[in-house]
Amino acid sequence: MEQTQSACHIHGGEGGGQPVRKSHHSDEMKANLINRLNRIEGQVRGVKGLIEKDTYCDDVLNQIASIQSALNSVGKLLLEGHMRSCIVERIQSGETEVVDELLTTVHKLMK
Amino acid sequence: MEQTQSACHIHGGEGGGQPVRKSHHSDEMKANLINRLNRIEGQVRGVKGLIEKDTYCDDVLNQIASIQSALNSVGKLLLEGHMRSCIVERIQSGETEVVDELLTTVHKLMK
Amino acid sequence: MEQTQSACHIHGGEGGGQPVRKSHHSDEMKANLINRLNRIEGQVRGVKGLIEKDTYCDDVLNQIASIQSALNSVGKLLLEGHMRSCIVERIQSGETEVVDELLTTVHKLMK
Amino acid sequence: MEQTQSACHIHGGEGGGQPVRKSHHSDEMKANLINRLNRIEGQVRGVKGLIEKDTYCDDVLNQIASIQSALNSVGKLLLEGHMRSCIVERIQSGETEVVDELLTTVHKLMK
Repeated sequence: MEQTQSACHIHGGEGGGQPVRKSHHSDEMKANLINRLNRIEGQVRGVKGLIEKDTYCDDVLNQIASIQSALNSVGKLLLEGHMRSCIVERIQSGETEVVDELLTTVHKLMK
Repeated sequence: MEQTQSACHIHGGEGGGQPVRKSHHSDEMKANLINRLNRIEGQVRGVKGLIEKDTYCDDVLNQIASIQSALNSVGKLLLEGHMRSCIVERIQSGETEVVDELLTTVHKLMK
Repeated sequence: MEQTQSACHIHGGEGGGQPVRKSHHSDEMKANLINRLNRIEGQVRGVKGLIEKDTYCDDVLNQIASIQSALNSVGKLLLEGHMRSCIVERIQSGETEVVDELLTTVHKLMK
Repeated sequence: MEQTQSACHIHGGEGGGQPVRKSHHSDEMKANLINRLNRIEGQVRGVKGLIEKDTYCDDVLNQIASIQSALNSVGKLLLEGHMRSCIVERIQSGETEVVDELLTTVHKLMK
């Protein structure tokens, strides 16, 4: 399993503002995610072009399946970073309610 | 089930070029698909922004699940148009080998 | 892709009874499906035993994932037999409404 | 989200034997899981009967989709019990390597 470096922290809230939970990824992890998302964005744009040009549906459907798989990989990377940082940290500091949040999200991704 | 208007035809091949199979969607169907893909492209761009801004991972993962679901809908629309046009036409003209192609694609989408 | 031999026919309806659509699989295909289902039934029974014996959840979850994958394979075999027989035959005899039925089923399997 | 009561403990290992990790579910949770698995076992047996009787494939495929969905629900219940007990306990006692195990399992269930 690929090692990911992400960290979890609370930001703000000192000056009276609402504190916001943040997830910080290492530069390497960020670049990896952004690269993958750029490629996915290009693939989605490509599918629009295929439809404009009346490309045979089966080819377009294969392209859709390939985007789904690329998006799944981004989801897995993010889930991994999330579990290794925020989930571990919050459970260790006693915030076990984070498990509810995680279950809801994993169930959405499992559909 | 939403009615879709798509048609299947062979293009070219007369002047010695390779004939190409084409799928033509009605203007309404095309606009529907392009709209959905524009929205998906915007969502993917949005996720890049969320990662740049260190947004809490759980929120990003929910956004990913929402893109997956939007992409699934595009896949279903395309599959519906494809079956109602090319699959029906090719089976009716005796090209039952189109079933192999369809099975391969459906299995990819079912994963 | 594995070749499957299945056939589609209408049964009864002559003596005033409601005609019933039937799918007949070759003996080989039937034996293949029954074998797989017997194995799946055994796996489900096995999971009950694991739960009774307080087996570590992660092991049980892996067993569930393995049953899901075995069940998926049965679904793919049946879908293949169905498309090669009933779907082709009904489309060729002009019953294109079978496409609605197929789309509904494929969408359930794609979830 | 349904509350589940499961607990995680190490069994044996005192007398020189290999210690075994166990997951204990409350009687209510156990009965719930066993009930669901009994129903699934009956459904799998039912599908064998459908195939023997040459039932129309589309009906059999819908039955398969229904078993998949029932099995998914068992997976979700078990995952919930697992996260609320073993995952929380092991992370709190510093065994963060349990996250690797969880990720591997969730990825299998997400496929």
